[in-house]
Amino acid sequence: IGVLDVDICGPSLPKIFGVEGEQVHQSGSGWSPVYVDDNLSLMSVGFLLSKADEAVIWRGPKKNGMIKQFLRDVDWGEIDYLLIDTPPGTSDEHLSIAQYLKESDVDGAIVITTPQEVALLDVRKEITFCRKVDLPIIGVVENMSSFVCPKCKVSTQIFPASTGGGQKMAEDMNVPFLGSLPLDPRIGKCCDEGKSFLTEVPDSPATQAYKQIMSKIVEYCTKRNENRESDSGEMKTN
Amino acid sequence: IGVLDVDICGPSLPKIFGVEGEQVHQSGSGWSPVYVDDNLSLMSVGFLLSKADEAVIWRGPKKNGMIKQFLRDVDWGEIDYLLIDTPPGTSDEHLSIAQYLKESDVDGAIVITTPQEVALLDVRKEITFCRKVDLPIIGVVENMSSFVCPKCKVSTQIFPASTGGGQKMAEDMNVPFLGSLPLDPRIGKCCDEGKSFLTEVPDSPATQAYKQIMSKIVEYCTKRNENRESDSGEMKTN
Repeated sequence: IGVLDVDICGPSLPKIFGVEGEQVHQSGSGWSPVYVDDNLSLMSVGFLLSKADEAVIWRGPKKNGMIKQFLRDVDWGEIDYLLIDTPPGTSDEHLSIAQYLKESDVDGAIVITTPQEVALLDVRKEITFCRKVDLPIIGVVENMSSFVCPKCKVSTQIFPASTGGGQKMAEDMNVPFLGSLPLDPRIGKCCDEGKSFLTEVPDSPATQAYKQIMSKIVEYCTKRNENRESDSGEMKTN
Repeated sequence: IGVLDVDICGPSLPKIFGVEGEQVHQSGSGWSPVYVDDNLSLMSVGFLLSKADEAVIWRGPKKNGMIKQFLRDVDWGEIDYLLIDTPPGTSDEHLSIAQYLKESDVDGAIVITTPQEVALLDVRKEITFCRKVDLPIIGVVENMSSFVCPKCKVSTQIFPASTGGGQKMAEDMNVPFLGSLPLDPRIGKCCDEGKSFLTEVPDSPATQAYKQIMSKIVEYCTKRNENRESDSGEMKTN
């Protein structure tokens, strides 16, 4: 798996993956991503900054140039998946990804929301965006769904789903719903410490939710790949 | 008070202010903002969309054009404060605001964070940005600080301040700290319903925190205005 962080002004993935301060190297075959593990590599603007506080004060065209370079010049090696993490919105980063990868038959977009209507309002626009640029939608994930008090075990909806949350929105917009992730303070802690939540807290309900969501995504992509292969087989026959 | 929403791709303020679906009107003196109250008006791209799901798929230059129009053509009437709400980042929206208002002696920026290091990482870049473009920093607000279980009253840090949170970051970066806002599910609910949290839940600790933060901001701006007046007085004398 290769992961490309296209949040140019707020690159957080090096920190979350525990590889902050690493360097990317240039070779004959392009830029080498940073290896988080044997089977997981990452490319981010974060690796190109000399100081962590440094601001990337770039307007759209410069951001687009960087994204193009990331897509063209990074030597990912043999990977099964390329995961691209975008900032929120429907602007330069999203348009550039959709445009530059137009010929690549991208599997689709995973759309992340939180339960409140104020968040769904933006996320509906993201779904409209995907449709306008012909990007398939793998599905919607609802993050920060509910919180179980570690002391009394009572569950609270910290971000109330006042209009039905991610699941109802997905139904209304006719896109698949992939699952809900509960709020667990250990997720934020693992992100800050660059540790894998799934191995640190294997017994958390959030870990189960992550795994279910992942298997749905893998299933979708596998099916899509099978269809792709059978389509190209048919084309050859014809 | 006038409020300008420059989150062009994700305009949430019309919903939060309870004026979603209102129209802006054009008159001889410019665009009329939408009045939320006698003393509170709002301008947002949200008022220009024909459908709430509609995506604003604009690259930087078009967003900048809209921001320029908002700054130039809106007839705010007599206001004491113009509050500009930006999306996260250090890109087109932020550069445009800083550039177009360069001659206006802007009072300063209020920087919002959450407690985790992953958020502080981005917010330090915002502070660096403000310094680079000569924008004074009024201070840092920490949102989503802690959560008190409504059942057992035990407080949990849902987004753990693993590196000391907003206050320590403000000290390290040598900018004022304005206060912390606790997580209260009724805040999200009020936003979704377009109601004022301060009048709906006057007894919440979050309401006290909001009021303390507001008085610090007003105090800062008042002092700055006094200095400005005495400076211009001196200039006249000279």
